[in-house]
Amino acid sequence: MEVVVPFAASDPKTRLAGVLAPAERSQLARAMLADVLDAVVETGHEPTVVATAPLEIRGLAVDPTVEAETSVTVDDRPLTAAVNARLPQTQGDDPVAVVMADLALTTPAALETLWSSDADVAIAPGRGGGTNALVVRHPEFRVDYHGASYLDHRELARTAGATLETIDSFRLGTDVDEPDDLVEVLVHGDETARTPACLCELGFDLDRSDGRVSAVRLEGSTSSR
Amino acid sequence: MEVVVPFAASDPKTRLAGVLAPAERSQLARAMLADVLDAVVETGHEPTVVATAPLEIRGLAVDPTVEAETSVTVDDRPLTAAVNARLPQTQGDDPVAVVMADLALTTPAALETLWSSDADVAIAPGRGGGTNALVVRHPEFRVDYHGASYLDHRELARTAGATLETIDSFRLGTDVDEPDDLVEVLVHGDETARTPACLCELGFDLDRSDGRVSAVRLEGSTSSR
Repeated sequence: MEVVVPFAASDPKTRLAGVLAPAERSQLARAMLADVLDAVVETGHEPTVVATAPLEIRGLAVDPTVEAETSVTVDDRPLTAAVNARLPQTQGDDPVAVVMADLALTTPAALETLWSSDADVAIAPGRGGGTNALVVRHPEFRVDYHGASYLDHRELARTAGATLETIDSFRLGTDVDEPDDLVEVLVHGDETARTPACLCELGFDLDRSDGRVSAVRLEGSTSSR
Repeated sequence: MEVVVPFAASDPKTRLAGVLAPAERSQLARAMLADVLDAVVETGHEPTVVATAPLEIRGLAVDPTVEAETSVTVDDRPLTAAVNARLPQTQGDDPVAVVMADLALTTPAALETLWSSDADVAIAPGRGGGTNALVVRHPEFRVDYHGASYLDHRELARTAGATLETIDSFRLGTDVDEPDDLVEVLVHGDETARTPACLCELGFDLDRSDGRVSAVRLEGSTSSR
């Protein structure tokens, strides 16, 4: 199985612009990518990062095994076109998995659950009808990431005559797009993972003072914004 | 195993007050409770609804099997005290599961994953550090639902010398508290479930016009508010 990890290499995570400067968003996006690559490699697969611009894997400071197993392809087309060009084209082609680069809570176990589905199309949805990760085994299925892609993908699978399984995972369902999502990284992020460490370095911490938990940035840590 | 479903019988779901009138919030809360009870009974367990005020199960229009298997106890103490009074008190007591009544996407399969953990404490967290469902097998563990309860429960398990497992489920992780959560019901709710039907009846529908999906209320459907 091929594992594709699409990555927006320039100006990533624009919806975090209210809390992070451009260079910080880029730093966070790379930390999340590194965590996703770690998890993919730990499941025994060799990920291909499909980046919108050149990217040095060495710059992610992943460990040497992960660096050796990962390749990078530059494809500056929109996400949907770049992914569709890599899906199985004819019967007998290897299955292809597509895992978003911002799934900071991804674990090998969560990915294994997705990999182990034998449906023609297996989808781990995100909040708001997104498609956070999927595995495609059917040569006629194509993605369309615009809008409520999970609903579109269900419909597209039906049209292609493909069976579909929805994977029930909080971890794969959590993509980090908005400031509220940072809480999930601080609550559930693995101690050895890069993304929580990156947020700590950027001055974020959990605020549990008002009964609900939130991610706050400590004063003095935002001067670079 | 005992399965406790705490239910706020009066003025439920106050954070939905911006989009639903009090009677509508009560209607939605009861639809969600009915869906949760359905799922629990389908796993072969007999749920006890611990309600803050008297509640007629017959009024939920669940099917006769579910009605027969469900009992109701009134306990007007705060959630934490009402739950702690029902947890295992001594070694050898039956395990106790606590499932929140607003887990509208709950399925028997998701519950089975939680039930099947053999940890002393198994928790399905919600977004924002909440504890949406748990199973307690250890006589010294107690809950504290205030604030970021998932983090507190991890700490309390450690203090009690209890093993802890976190259950990775998008469905159990989705509690319906805020207007944004209604989207998840409309996207993922089972066709035969009461909660999506209730939202449709109240005039809600998915709006997919602006690239992101949201739950909108059709004009003319809010006159009772």
